[in-house]
Amino acid sequence: MSTVEARLKSHGHEIPPAPAAVGNYVPALKTGSLVLTSGQLPTVGKEVVFTGKVGHDVTEEQGRHAARLCALNALAQIKAVIGSLDRVVRVVRVEGYVQSAAGFSRQPAVVNGASDLIAEAFGEFGKHTRIAVGVSELPLNAAVELALWVEVA
Amino acid sequence: MSTVEARLKSHGHEIPPAPAAVGNYVPALKTGSLVLTSGQLPTVGKEVVFTGKVGHDVTEEQGRHAARLCALNALAQIKAVIGSLDRVVRVVRVEGYVQSAAGFSRQPAVVNGASDLIAEAFGEFGKHTRIAVGVSELPLNAAVELALWVEVA
Amino acid sequence: MSTVEARLKSHGHEIPPAPAAVGNYVPALKTGSLVLTSGQLPTVGKEVVFTGKVGHDVTEEQGRHAARLCALNALAQIKAVIGSLDRVVRVVRVEGYVQSAAGFSRQPAVVNGASDLIAEAFGEFGKHTRIAVGVSELPLNAAVELALWVEVA
Repeated sequence: MSTVEARLKSHGHEIPPAPAAVGNYVPALKTGSLVLTSGQLPTVGKEVVFTGKVGHDVTEEQGRHAARLCALNALAQIKAVIGSLDRVVRVVRVEGYVQSAAGFSRQPAVVNGASDLIAEAFGEFGKHTRIAVGVSELPLNAAVELALWVEVA
Repeated sequence: MSTVEARLKSHGHEIPPAPAAVGNYVPALKTGSLVLTSGQLPTVGKEVVFTGKVGHDVTEEQGRHAARLCALNALAQIKAVIGSLDRVVRVVRVEGYVQSAAGFSRQPAVVNGASDLIAEAFGEFGKHTRIAVGVSELPLNAAVELALWVEVA
Repeated sequence: MSTVEARLKSHGHEIPPAPAAVGNYVPALKTGSLVLTSGQLPTVGKEVVFTGKVGHDVTEEQGRHAARLCALNALAQIKAVIGSLDRVVRVVRVEGYVQSAAGFSRQPAVVNGASDLIAEAFGEFGKHTRIAVGVSELPLNAAVELALWVEVA
């Protein structure tokens, strides 16, 4: 088990099997020193477990959980490309899209679900940039979609 | 004619003249080994040919066609920067924004219009990552906006 | 004072202190030759000075002003990472998210507030790619969120 996965485990998290893409694309790839993922959904197995709008159908706390699942799926995709998460030298960027109810503007609190997990997994090397926006609709009615970029040695 | 353009032609597609930017920016540029486009709209000549919300004003199939037009425009922008699409060694990322009606969550099917075209044009080298999100409003009421990243040798 | 800042000053603009992140992330970082910012809001000090939807609560001209504030904050973040904005050899990308009222489709005019400022600051080196999309909700009810990528020598 990689150091990163051991750290995650100590916080009660486990890297899942990497989800399949939901269209004609690949879940992640390496270009130069960056590994980029496609947008990940809050799935467990094949099921999207948080659907609906955050701030209405889904609470902020559930949204945070959804963001965490997206981040775990993104890490699974990166692991599938590079073999071990210990090759990551820097988490570069989190892109968080939150399917938001009208008037909900706490996207940063939701996306912290992903950012906090990354901090637990990578410590200092996990310090990343981030965009967090609220969108009206997401694939499969998912509450959150999230993409992740990391730098590898 | 480049190999990529010949492949596109065999599928009935042609790279159009590269559209002008609709603001104070450039349509594409090269940084390191990446060429990035600005957001492209489903235009033919100067006209946005698919306007309105997918799932209401625009059908899913029309949305897919719109995404294909965006992708052709993006390839035109990349060709304008690098001279020939045969210099592309890898398609890296598709960013698809779908102007979506309330409750429409089939953005992946819409953005496949672009991803399928890229697969036809580039084969194995066309395997890209992707984000697909639904947004409430897009420039000029376009049904789809799409940006493309490729890696060149 | 850097040449870039002198140019901005001649247009009546000043780089503000770099705003703190509003979540568990960093405001900007360097990866390879790129410096990327997190999404910046139209803040002055700690206050978001343009809130609401562009096209309803906020006029297009105010939206443009909001985009300009976001761009100044993004430049402040980049300066904090690299020391001087004169190290920028190319502005690479502006990502503009406009919190849009229903039916508002002039996001390019709004995001020009940022692009025009960048042209003033960097001249030829400021020519960047751009995405401009309309979203339903943004963090803290901000009218605009904007991220910036630059290339450094």
